Parts: sequence; C-alpha cells; structure tokens
Amino acid sequence: MDNKVYLSRDEIPKQWYNLVADLKRPLRQPLGPDGKPISPDQLAPVFPMNIIEQEVSQERWIDIPEEILEILYRWRPTPLRRAVYLEKHLKTPARIYYKDESVSPAGSHKPNTAVAQAWYNKQFGIKRLTTETGAGQWGSALAFACHLVGLECKVFMVRVSYEQKPFRKTLMRVWGGNCVSSPSNETEAGRKILKEMPDTPGSLGIAISEAIEQAVSDPSGETRYSLGSVLNHVMLHQTIIGLEAKKQLKKFKESQPDVVIGCAGGGSNFAGLSFPFVCDKIHGKSMEIIGTEPTACPSLTRGAYRYDHGDIAGMTPLLAMYTLGHKFIPEPIHAGGLRYHGMSPLVSHAVCEGLIKARAYDQLRCFDAALTWARTEGFVCAPETSHAIAAAIDEAIKAREEGKKKVILFNYSGHGLLDLLGYEKYLNGELTKYELPQKKLDESLDQIMHFPEIE
Amino acid sequence: MDNKVYLSRDEIPKQWYNLVADLKRPLRQPLGPDGKPISPDQLAPVFPMNIIEQEVSQERWIDIPEEILEILYRWRPTPLRRAVYLEKHLKTPARIYYKDESVSPAGSHKPNTAVAQAWYNKQFGIKRLTTETGAGQWGSALAFACHLVGLECKVFMVRVSYEQKPFRKTLMRVWGGNCVSSPSNETEAGRKILKEMPDTPGSLGIAISEAIEQAVSDPSGETRYSLGSVLNHVMLHQTIIGLEAKKQLKKFKESQPDVVIGCAGGGSNFAGLSFPFVCDKIHGKSMEIIGTEPTACPSLTRGAYRYDHGDIAGMTPLLAMYTLGHKFIPEPIHAGGLRYHGMSPLVSHAVCEGLIKARAYDQLRCFDAALTWARTEGFVCAPETSHAIAAAIDEAIKAREEGKKKVILFNYSGHGLLDLLGYEKYLNGELTKYELPQKKLDESLDQIMHFPEIE
Repeated sequence: MDNKVYLSRDEIPKQWYNLVADLKRPLRQPLGPDGKPISPDQLAPVFPMNIIEQEVSQERWIDIPEEILEILYRWRPTPLRRAVYLEKHLKTPARIYYKDESVSPAGSHKPNTAVAQAWYNKQFGIKRLTTETGAGQWGSALAFACHLVGLECKVFMVRVSYEQKPFRKTLMRVWGGNCVSSPSNETEAGRKILKEMPDTPGSLGIAISEAIEQAVSDPSGETRYSLGSVLNHVMLHQTIIGLEAKKQLKKFKESQPDVVIGCAGGGSNFAGLSFPFVCDKIHGKSMEIIGTEPTACPSLTRGAYRYDHGDIAGMTPLLAMYTLGHKFIPEPIHAGGLRYHGMSPLVSHAVCEGLIKARAYDQLRCFDAALTWARTEGFVCAPETSHAIAAAIDEAIKAREEGKKKVILFNYSGHGLLDLLGYEKYLNGELTKYELPQKKLDESLDQIMHFPEIE
Repeated sequence: MDNKVYLSRDEIPKQWYNLVADLKRPLRQPLGPDGKPISPDQLAPVFPMNIIEQEVSQERWIDIPEEILEILYRWRPTPLRRAVYLEKHLKTPARIYYKDESVSPAGSHKPNTAVAQAWYNKQFGIKRLTTETGAGQWGSALAFACHLVGLECKVFMVRVSYEQKPFRKTLMRVWGGNCVSSPSNETEAGRKILKEMPDTPGSLGIAISEAIEQAVSDPSGETRYSLGSVLNHVMLHQTIIGLEAKKQLKKFKESQPDVVIGCAGGGSNFAGLSFPFVCDKIHGKSMEIIGTEPTACPSLTRGAYRYDHGDIAGMTPLLAMYTLGHKFIPEPIHAGGLRYHGMSPLVSHAVCEGLIKARAYDQLRCFDAALTWARTEGFVCAPETSHAIAAAIDEAIKAREEGKKKVILFNYSGHGLLDLLGYEKYLNGELTKYELPQKKLDESLDQIMHFPEIE
C-alpha cells in the first residue's frame, strides 16, 4: 500500500465549507464599542465588502473562484500521507494520517487564505494590503499572495522577530513584499510607542494597530487590512484542507477518522482540517476532534469564554471567544503562531457546543514529539505543528493500550526549516517546562470582566 | 491538464542505471601515487567492499535493495512538475518540466545516495561513517540516512560555514549526527593546521583530510568514509531521478525531452537526471544535455581534462576529470555546492565524448533567475539550482525566438530555505559579477601539469 495519496487537479474542491450554516445555535455576533452588534458598514474601512460578505455569510457552500484555484494549483491539492514509520515506532494498531500543508511555497497552510484575501481585495479595486506578523509565517504568505495577484504588500513585523528571524523577512522581500520593524516611524501609533518606550521589543498588538492605522488612513481609499487567522472568512478559506483530506481518506479506503487533531493559535489550520468533520459530527457521526495548544498560552483549556478584543490595543470589535484577556502576553515559546490570547469565535463556539475538545501541551513534550517525528518520518516540523504531533502520538499510544485500530488524522500545518533555532535550544537543554501561573491568568482575565458576558 | 505528475509506490525504479556499461570508449581508471591504476583493495580502508564493487562495476543495471527503497518511499517518487507559470511569463512555446528533488527531508537530492551508502556500509558491518561538508547539504543528508539505517555519523564541517550557517548543523543534530568544526582537535591533520594557522576559515580539503584520517585510523576497523558526489557509485545512486523522470514524461505524453539541464558541482544531481537520457543519446536519439556551472568555478568550461586529485591535500587517487587544479580556491559564492575544483570522472568523460555540453553562469544572472522563479512558480530554489533555472530560461527564450515547441527538462536539485542569506545580499545589491581571471586559473593549472596526461 502506498503511504501517500495525491489528488489530481480535477479533484480539488471547488467550494469552501461554511460551518456557520450547520450550527444548531447561531454564532454570536461581534459587538461595537457601544456593546451593540456591529454592522458590515462599520468594517468597510478595514476590509473590502466582498470579504465582509463572506465574514457574515450563512451559506453552507461558497464557490472558490477559478482564478484563486489557478494560484493554489502551484502546490494544491496537497498530499495526504500515512505516517507508517511513526506507527511502527510506536507499535500502534492505529493508522495515522497527516495532511501535508508544509508543501506550499511559504511552507505552511497560510497561503490558502492569503491568496483568497488578496484576490478579493484586488477584485474590489484595492491596490495595497497591510498586515502584521509575529514570527513571519503570515507576513511571508501574504507577500507571496499579493505578488501573484498584483497588489502591494506592507508588513509590520514585531521588532524582536524582525531582528531575530531575518530570513522570514528576506522571504517577504523575495516575493516583493515591504516589511518594516514595528513599532515604526510610519504611523502615529508606532511613533507614540517609540517615544514612550524606545527599547520595546514590540508586540503583535502594536503591529496590528500600525497595520490597521495605515490601512484606514490612506486618503486614496485604496488600502485595506488583512488578518491571517481568527475571523470567519479565514476559517472558511482554510476548509479546503479538510475537504481534500476527506477525498483522500476515501482513496486510502478509510470511511472516516476516529480522531481529528490540529494545533490552534488563532484557530485557522485546525478549523481548516476539522470543520468538514465537525459537520459530519453535527449530523450524527461519532468522532473526537481535538485542538491542541501550548500550556504557555492555553486559551481553550484555561481561558474564559467571553467577549474580548482581538488585539492588545483594543482596536477590534469585541468577539465572543475563549480568551486569556487581550492584554495577556505569553511567554516567548518558539511556537510563535500559537502565542495568541484569543481563539477564533467559530472554533470557540464549537468547543462550547461540545463538538471539539481541547488539550494543552508543554513545549518540552512538543519538541520531544518533533524529534521523534524527524527521526521516524524524516521531516522537520514547525514548532506549532509539534503540538498536533504530540497529541497524535498520545492517541496512537492510547489505541495501542486499548487494542483499537483507530484512524487518526492530523494537520501537518508547516515545516520547521526556518525555526531551527528552537530545535537548537531544545537540543542544548536550554528550554524549560512552563505552566501558566494561575495568578497571572487571573490578573489578565480580571481586566476583561467588565466586557459583556456570554449567556 | 495537470501541472504535476506523481508516480505510485509501485512505479519507483527497482534498479539504478550504470552509464559505464554504455560508454563506447572505456572510462579511465583512477591512478595511485605510483601512476598505476589502483586496485579495489587499496580503497578498502576507506570504503566498504560492496560500495567499491559498485564503483568499478560494468553492469548496466544494478538492483536497488528493497530496504533502501523502503527508506526512499518517505519522499520518493518525487513529483515531475511543469513550470506553466514561468512558461507564460516568458511567452515561450516551450514546455518546461522540472524534477522536484527539493521535497526530500534534507531538502535536496543528496539523500538518494546518502541512504544507499549508509545501508551498504551497515550491511558490511560498519558502525560509523565520517564525512566532510561545506555548506551542510551533504552532512545533513548523511546524518539523516545514518540515523534511519542505524549508524553513527560524524561530520567535519568547514569552520566558516559551521559559524555562518548554524542551522544546517542543527539539522544534523536533529537526526542525531555529530558535527564538529574543521579544522578540529580530533585529528592529526586538524591539529597540524590549527597550530600553523589558528585563524583559518577552514576548507573542504582540510575537512576531507580529517574525515578520511578518522575513518582509516579507527583501530576497530568499524569506521568508513563517505563522499557525496564525484565518484561513480554516487552517480549511480542518483540515476533514480532520471529514471523516474522518464516515466513521468510519458505520463505527460512527451516522447522525449529536447533539452536536459542540471547544475554541476561534483556532478551528482546533474548525472542523476541526465545519465538515463545520455544512454538514449548514445543509442541514437537526438537531444541537448547541458551541465551548468558558476563562472567563479568553471571546471567544465575552462578547466583542463587531466588526472588530478579530488581533494586539496592530495589524499585521494588521481582521477581523470575536468579540473581547475586541486589547489584552486573558488570565490565564496553562495552556491556552495558548486564550489568544487574538479568534476565527476563519468560526467567529464561524457563531456569529452561530446554527449554533454557545459555552460557557465554568473551569480548575478543566477539570482535574477531565482527571483523570476520565485515570483512566477512561487518556490524558493537553492543557489545551486538557480544555475539550472538560468539555463532553462535561456533555452525557453531561444525556443520562442526560433518558434519551436521544445521540451525542456531540468533538475530542481534543492530548495533555498536555508540559503536565504544569499538572497538577502542579492536584494541589497551586495553581490557582484565575477569572472575567474585567466592568470589565477593558469597558475592553478600549472601546479598539476606534472600529473599524467590524458591521451
């Protein structure tokens, strides 16, 4: 039996799946500063109207424009592989499958939505996108997408990453993107911070403020802002992952997975793989769907389900989500993509409804899983992805102990070739186990207790 | 039409192709220090006998052991892709195909022979392999292979690369390899150099000397040395590339390529793709086969066809090859894998016989081609690979000018995700055009003029 299954070009999904259409209880709407639901018009300075329509759409299936597919064909459909070497190593009766999103030019699942967002902005007459980036995965994906679609791309990269991870910045430049260190002198928000705290390492919150400010203040009206996770339209664009995986599991002659796993920061790669299966679960199929997160930033396992801002500066609407508090600053673990205080409202809703479970892993356990992976399957995974692998290993061991031939499916969200510093530190014994102290969490949550409660 | 063709597991080639069997004039044998052909026994302290047998084999087809295939299945068969976006960009009637060897865990074609060499050594009862590495591509591939086969791996990495490219070293550690900076204190050769030149940046020549010394001086006799290019058995192991490509071209409904291209340092990725087509050419088919090299290190285009040592220290036998002289030190261009003074004797022989042509490209032209590639096809190639892309672009433009629907095939030998420093310097305008001065070349060649001449 082959250990990988591809799909032909013809077999690529032609529609995205929108989980909103299948929810039994309606998704809670974002609230404005006045505590009332915000209208699409209020978002118009930030996002183009065609994307806002997707954000609030109730349609189950949304057509993927052919021009977007034409760009995705560069690396999609992505392979579904069976981790036969890991299975042997674990002596498990389970069959472990992983959807390999690391094969994209930017090395992760991020281009799936970057391409879609760039294309819709272009259609709407926009000339330029701004965004923020932490470690640079999202910034490089958007630079790539903007170049292919024909937009300018401006990325505000958190200063400490800008200095410590110079190569993701180079990657943005290779694709014609313009990346500056944040806080920058280009925005009022940036200048204010630079004056107050000239030595700040920067933060995602500051970078978001700068990116939004530069988008909404462009007098030509031709600039918009782009976000790489959290929002409904981002989850939507990522469902191509799970829809492909379903077709591929059939080719492996598997009727359905017993366990579906993904790591969750803002939630997009996890939602992308899992939502088509959440749909099956809603319609009666039995399976476990597990989102994994770091113990250093445990929004789903230890956060509160409340209305909160999506950014530290409080510029975004209030979103109904699992959150650690929008002023929470996680430890600088190497899984930079999982260092987010909140969680996609759609993922949060599904957790609240009992459709999805969550589990937190410590970074030492995750790097150990990453090494086991590299030394059996051969490939070097992203630190984020190692959180999914750790859970897949646990589930495979559990299957062995129970003597069950379970089918485990997880999302291999990205490779770790630009994250080798984390591996180096782990191999040197320089990383430590980290559990978020309850006091730090309580203090952070206290600050959002005046926000509207969820019933 | 799909732009990529995969092969199933069943379709992987089960034999390697040995060009030696089809040569009209016999390959010239390596000579010992006495100027006489060396015997297999003389190589026994360095290589295991089963590999020496392959090195001197006259058999056309050599079976690939199932255990080796089982490891290669992790990423093989590799995809053959059509560069439709580059074709459109160039407005060429040519069809450009590329064999994607970048998908291996180590990111290049190198594991094809690393796995085979590790496995044969293991079969022979060897416990430990030593090798040298420059930029680290080969060292990481051998560390990967040794781990999977169950051997220890010791890599001597040129000091300047060890310090400047820490992440390839990390990659070796991820796979359990032991990498030290060369010159080291572990060998006599290393200690001697450290005493004489404590500040030396190191060289491949020094690292080879250290690796061979450590292999042959192990009193247990359980250590051997491994080389990642140049030798016949390495070319043999790489032919799986071209053999797969042939099957895939058929699936694209192409009867044969008109032009076959690969970059050539020691010659292994180029030979791997091209030798099965050189075979066709020997048997009457008409096609152009082009090896590309840097103008900074132009062994095929400006070197002499002579007997010369494979290493700077003169520890290897004399090989009949195109060479710039074994004491030649190329400029520090970023295509580190092409900075070799000599060339595979088999590739050299085929050039001498008129079966293969050679062409040299400047690094600025190559980085320009790499950017064109990243901005059309999307992927970031290795600096070495950009030399093949530059030639593919030239051939596609020529086809446009001639109005011919040529089929161009090249080897995409590796990705550039661990080589982004070179891109950064190119984008900053810090790289310059470089042509090797005739005087420097003459002086280098003068030093080997006392070696045996080739008739």
